[in-house]
Amino acid sequence: MVSGRNEKIAGKLRLGMVGGGKDAFIGGVHRIAARIDGEFELVAGALSSTPERALESGRALGLDEKRIYGSFQEMASREARRKDGIDAVAIVTPNHMHYPAAREFLKRGIHVICDKPLTSTMADAKKLQKLAHDSDALFILTHNYTGYPMIRQAREMIARGDLGTIRVIQAEYAQDWLTEAVEETGSKQASWRTDPAQSGAGGALGDIGTHAYNLLSFVTGLELSELSADLQSFVKGRRLDDNAHVMMRFSSGARGMLWASQVSPGNENGLRLRIYGDKGGLEWGQEDPNYLWFTPFGEPKRLITRNGAGAGAAAGRVSRVPPGHPEGYLEGFATIYAEAARAIRAKQDKKSVDKDVIFPTVDDGVAGIAFVEACVKSAKKNGAWVKP
Amino acid sequence: MVSGRNEKIAGKLRLGMVGGGKDAFIGGVHRIAARIDGEFELVAGALSSTPERALESGRALGLDEKRIYGSFQEMASREARRKDGIDAVAIVTPNHMHYPAAREFLKRGIHVICDKPLTSTMADAKKLQKLAHDSDALFILTHNYTGYPMIRQAREMIARGDLGTIRVIQAEYAQDWLTEAVEETGSKQASWRTDPAQSGAGGALGDIGTHAYNLLSFVTGLELSELSADLQSFVKGRRLDDNAHVMMRFSSGARGMLWASQVSPGNENGLRLRIYGDKGGLEWGQEDPNYLWFTPFGEPKRLITRNGAGAGAAAGRVSRVPPGHPEGYLEGFATIYAEAARAIRAKQDKKSVDKDVIFPTVDDGVAGIAFVEACVKSAKKNGAWVKP
Amino acid sequence: MVSGRNEKIAGKLRLGMVGGGKDAFIGGVHRIAARIDGEFELVAGALSSTPERALESGRALGLDEKRIYGSFQEMASREARRKDGIDAVAIVTPNHMHYPAAREFLKRGIHVICDKPLTSTMADAKKLQKLAHDSDALFILTHNYTGYPMIRQAREMIARGDLGTIRVIQAEYAQDWLTEAVEETGSKQASWRTDPAQSGAGGALGDIGTHAYNLLSFVTGLELSELSADLQSFVKGRRLDDNAHVMMRFSSGARGMLWASQVSPGNENGLRLRIYGDKGGLEWGQEDPNYLWFTPFGEPKRLITRNGAGAGAAAGRVSRVPPGHPEGYLEGFATIYAEAARAIRAKQDKKSVDKDVIFPTVDDGVAGIAFVEACVKSAKKNGAWVKP
Amino acid sequence: MVSGRNEKIAGKLRLGMVGGGKDAFIGGVHRIAARIDGEFELVAGALSSTPERALESGRALGLDEKRIYGSFQEMASREARRKDGIDAVAIVTPNHMHYPAAREFLKRGIHVICDKPLTSTMADAKKLQKLAHDSDALFILTHNYTGYPMIRQAREMIARGDLGTIRVIQAEYAQDWLTEAVEETGSKQASWRTDPAQSGAGGALGDIGTHAYNLLSFVTGLELSELSADLQSFVKGRRLDDNAHVMMRFSSGARGMLWASQVSPGNENGLRLRIYGDKGGLEWGQEDPNYLWFTPFGEPKRLITRNGAGAGAAAGRVSRVPPGHPEGYLEGFATIYAEAARAIRAKQDKKSVDKDVIFPTVDDGVAGIAFVEACVKSAKKNGAWVKP
Repeated sequence: MVSGRNEKIAGKLRLGMVGGGKDAFIGGVHRIAARIDGEFELVAGALSSTPERALESGRALGLDEKRIYGSFQEMASREARRKDGIDAVAIVTPNHMHYPAAREFLKRGIHVICDKPLTSTMADAKKLQKLAHDSDALFILTHNYTGYPMIRQAREMIARGDLGTIRVIQAEYAQDWLTEAVEETGSKQASWRTDPAQSGAGGALGDIGTHAYNLLSFVTGLELSELSADLQSFVKGRRLDDNAHVMMRFSSGARGMLWASQVSPGNENGLRLRIYGDKGGLEWGQEDPNYLWFTPFGEPKRLITRNGAGAGAAAGRVSRVPPGHPEGYLEGFATIYAEAARAIRAKQDKKSVDKDVIFPTVDDGVAGIAFVEACVKSAKKNGAWVKP
Repeated sequence: MVSGRNEKIAGKLRLGMVGGGKDAFIGGVHRIAARIDGEFELVAGALSSTPERALESGRALGLDEKRIYGSFQEMASREARRKDGIDAVAIVTPNHMHYPAAREFLKRGIHVICDKPLTSTMADAKKLQKLAHDSDALFILTHNYTGYPMIRQAREMIARGDLGTIRVIQAEYAQDWLTEAVEETGSKQASWRTDPAQSGAGGALGDIGTHAYNLLSFVTGLELSELSADLQSFVKGRRLDDNAHVMMRFSSGARGMLWASQVSPGNENGLRLRIYGDKGGLEWGQEDPNYLWFTPFGEPKRLITRNGAGAGAAAGRVSRVPPGHPEGYLEGFATIYAEAARAIRAKQDKKSVDKDVIFPTVDDGVAGIAFVEACVKSAKKNGAWVKP
Repeated sequence: MVSGRNEKIAGKLRLGMVGGGKDAFIGGVHRIAARIDGEFELVAGALSSTPERALESGRALGLDEKRIYGSFQEMASREARRKDGIDAVAIVTPNHMHYPAAREFLKRGIHVICDKPLTSTMADAKKLQKLAHDSDALFILTHNYTGYPMIRQAREMIARGDLGTIRVIQAEYAQDWLTEAVEETGSKQASWRTDPAQSGAGGALGDIGTHAYNLLSFVTGLELSELSADLQSFVKGRRLDDNAHVMMRFSSGARGMLWASQVSPGNENGLRLRIYGDKGGLEWGQEDPNYLWFTPFGEPKRLITRNGAGAGAAAGRVSRVPPGHPEGYLEGFATIYAEAARAIRAKQDKKSVDKDVIFPTVDDGVAGIAFVEACVKSAKKNGAWVKP
Repeated sequence: MVSGRNEKIAGKLRLGMVGGGKDAFIGGVHRIAARIDGEFELVAGALSSTPERALESGRALGLDEKRIYGSFQEMASREARRKDGIDAVAIVTPNHMHYPAAREFLKRGIHVICDKPLTSTMADAKKLQKLAHDSDALFILTHNYTGYPMIRQAREMIARGDLGTIRVIQAEYAQDWLTEAVEETGSKQASWRTDPAQSGAGGALGDIGTHAYNLLSFVTGLELSELSADLQSFVKGRRLDDNAHVMMRFSSGARGMLWASQVSPGNENGLRLRIYGDKGGLEWGQEDPNYLWFTPFGEPKRLITRNGAGAGAAAGRVSRVPPGHPEGYLEGFATIYAEAARAIRAKQDKKSVDKDVIFPTVDDGVAGIAFVEACVKSAKKNGAWVKP
């Protein structure tokens, strides 16, 4: 089954990276994800805004020194002129740099794979959306959790009506790593995530709430019509929310709740989704991603496993190994890269991409920023219902 | 350990019952609960408002025919005059009859053990509260989940500061038995629970939401200052909510969410409580009640088990068997009866009851009704924050 | 559903007890179990071999002092002569006293409810078997785990072929309370269980291995043809096995393993049964007894819950409360008492007992002793295959 | 944390592959594992014993046609002469070809990464062992489960005495994919695994039992002194065992049981290890590999998570992402490749490899074959105890 997947056919796609130098977290994740299915080769980088750190990081990754750049502007312009220039760039900086970096590459026709949330402001998001729509280059947003096979399975089941009409959605994303004020004790990760200038208006909301919101949208296809939010910064001195409570109403009549927290001890990376319709219910948790609970109303609960009995085509096409051989976070992330590769190759071959290929786009990113801004607006108006 | 507990010392307490005839659910539960620790003997009943059914039900339970009554009024007045009259009465009718029934017994000095929610209206709740405060008889409300050992354990841990300052509470109570309109197809259980005249203003809210609210209050001791609610009746024609979303703010600054649903397939009796403070977190679920997850921030998660290593005195005094020998719903319910027995005997002996004895009171019942009414009011005002 | 069960119809059955005084464990369990379904009333006892302790224990339980006896011989002869003498006796002494005590009651036609294992020697077991077969009184052995609803469910499923032909059985019963030499530091429970004179030839084997063996036999109906055992006493100075490994061959061709241990830290009361046939598999664990995992080969795993969708009649008739309201160890134990009551009443009414009524008998007890003795014999012969 | 790991420093190591063409399973796994940490580049292959298939498979992987070979002999001799010849070869054929293939590379000084079990016969195993010991090239056996971080954690904890003296080991590896005779209906995977000529003397024993045995040895460091086995082929016509029961005695006095099965419905890839000492117990399961249960005797159970609080250095050095971001089967497998790369680079640099670098060797492979052969011998002697 492994060999039946799309291990690279011809040459690999050439990848550049903006951000992701030493001490970064998500850059390393992107690099592994890009490697897993053998579709990309990292060949260039502007890995840090500090030139020495950029150089050091690039060398550590074995990049050709000529392709270690001091700035993304330089990288974009030089790579665009090379015959063997990068096909795509991964942008893994703090949020506020996503827009300016993406702009440089999109306008040169270089495909962009960008970390989430899309931007730190709606103004940037809108500009980036226009740019992406106008560009011939692809824009892929790494809402990586959409790459999990059992999330694809859930989406497929809901689309074909296994749950009937959706009524209730319970989404949550709980962590505990910001329980104390680590942003004041040298954690770079915590520092930019709690800084409105770098993160945007949302703290936990932007960092993880957008994942939960994206995921529920991806799985159900429902349109959020309005929300009511209660945000809190529990840690003294923290400038952004570290706990968010949101009630949601969907245009279909479904209702939901969303909880995002980074101050809940015992939760490492607790992204969970529970969806209930008039014919059945689904439950999934990111920390045990190979399992999907499905209860057809009036029947025993069933445990559907990745690639196991009961899992369908949508999950199968993004699985790599047999059931019982757990795939994890990196494989789910890699699926975004694999889907990106399929789309990029189709583009390069001037073919239309297979309709099964799915990845989050700039529009999903705008929806995420709209969600964050609506939450912040609602919270400021003491929980008034706000349209996103 | 079993033998060290308070199996009855002298004679058993004499118990009567109002409601709980054939086809009722909770009456049978009360009877088992009353028997488990050997403290009560059922000797009288007004088991149904239909005389023949009352008689038939009383006979089936082996009651002396003289003490099978056609109405609770008759039972109250006759039993009060008997030398061997009942010490206490269990009221297990639909909600709207709690107040009139309780009144008859309280005013005659007969102790009342009453099912939840307290009443169907706040007016009745207030009157009952006054009556109970003025009476020398005890009023015990069977918020039975407070009888679970690991809930006592959680309360003890929070009281002594194991979690630090509480920040976030996630409470939920999800079921699926009202996913379809079973109230229209002959289910007596469903029929009265979805009838405002018998249930009160809350559907899922009153039936199970009050349990979740009571439990979080019991465990944390926090005072709810305001709430915002979004209620829904998903099943066509249903007159009361079958799904409720509530955001909560506590006077301490803590925040919470509460979800009550009876239309979520795959949830049998999913009462769950998660509580997070600045020093640690606790998680508990009613369907696996012998386990309590505790995470001191920065340490591995620990699984505290009933009567196991790490469980303390508060849990131990209401446990019957060693760890690994699961106790369940009926034992938790029986603990309310056992606590009631201790309080009643102390009363009879004109002693003060041991301070460890804990049971939900009329005041907890009033708080529950206030919670329901505040939710309904908030929902009518489109989620405005309302003080309960 | 609760009210539909057989709460007592007429008067309760009168129960006596041998053993079960202060500091005993299992006596208290029997008393609760006898009370839960309201079928028995404890009226007499020979609760300890020490007269003062017997008296003190009897008083603590509120027995009439005339029916607190200093010896089981006295109790048997006196109760047999009373008009209101006991209908049945519960024998809850250390194993070596089961036979002499049971003899006194059986020969007087008093029904016996006896704790397991049957006896401490095969000689006693055979004598008791003959006595029980010859007596008109019933002999019920409290292999209590057969009372769990999901065990009844498993038995029903296997009997009707849901698993096809059984191939593999994995049975285990692991505990940790004898990890250290607590028998040397005053634990009465540990002391008699590790004493061959009181326990018999098996330590962990007799105390818990017999439960596991009884349970697999009960559920599968398979006949054990031979076994190979490796026994160990890990704790220095311990005279009986505290860990047992057994390989089993069944006459049908099925194979199995059984592990019994009381020295495995982290196991509180880990009785687990896994059974695999050519059409499906079942898995059950005593600590979470309301769940039964069923995998029809080639389909997703299903979680069958007590009284939930997918549970059948055999489980339903021994359930008390709806799904999601967990029943536990005491309810499973109570089911043995409830079944005993049905059988005793049928006997008293000179009717044949309903065929659905199931309880372990003296023959199951003899099979248990044969299992223990075969294991001990095999172990002495360095694991030679031995017929039980 | 990701970036702190050893992403490639200079050029990648050049890798060849023997076996692993179309329809193979494990070859694809090896290729992903080799890519994850960026240490290897696949540049040559003899991917099938059928020349056309070899060519087709090599092209599908984008290999230079000159380096797609029709036989491993050809590949070994040509690559050894190239300046840019392969540094290492991955051997992923059926078991009986491991030895002849490995021989060709080892004798030319090319490092060998070989799938398990080592060989199909002990004769081959011994010859391979000698070759490997005599060669300057490294021999790495992909007992991939030793690459799981929580397995490293368990090993570290046992080595430092957290469990005290080990007493009991329960190892099992259960699957269900051979429940029916799929080897007769065209499954190539099933076909060679059930053929003694290709697999060797063990069926389930060789395929998965060796993993379980290797893992318990790796984690505990204990030496097996003798074993008693009962083997069975449940599926009609199957020539090798599909279910194996083994009792084990270790030279330290510890005892164990091992169960390997490929006919147990509901088990996808159920490799589980439970280890108990006089101070504590550990439990781990491959399907949920990021969790390790640890119970210090007399304390609550603790859930240690990969990279979470309580996990130590041994697990940390082979983790890639933070706790709560699950790593799976491919990452564990990749760790074997990463360790191989560290050892190969040290060899190339004529340095001694860091002592933390761990991988299974030819000696572990010989131990595995000895285990299989001892089981088969014991089973033939009706379970007699046999020294491996």
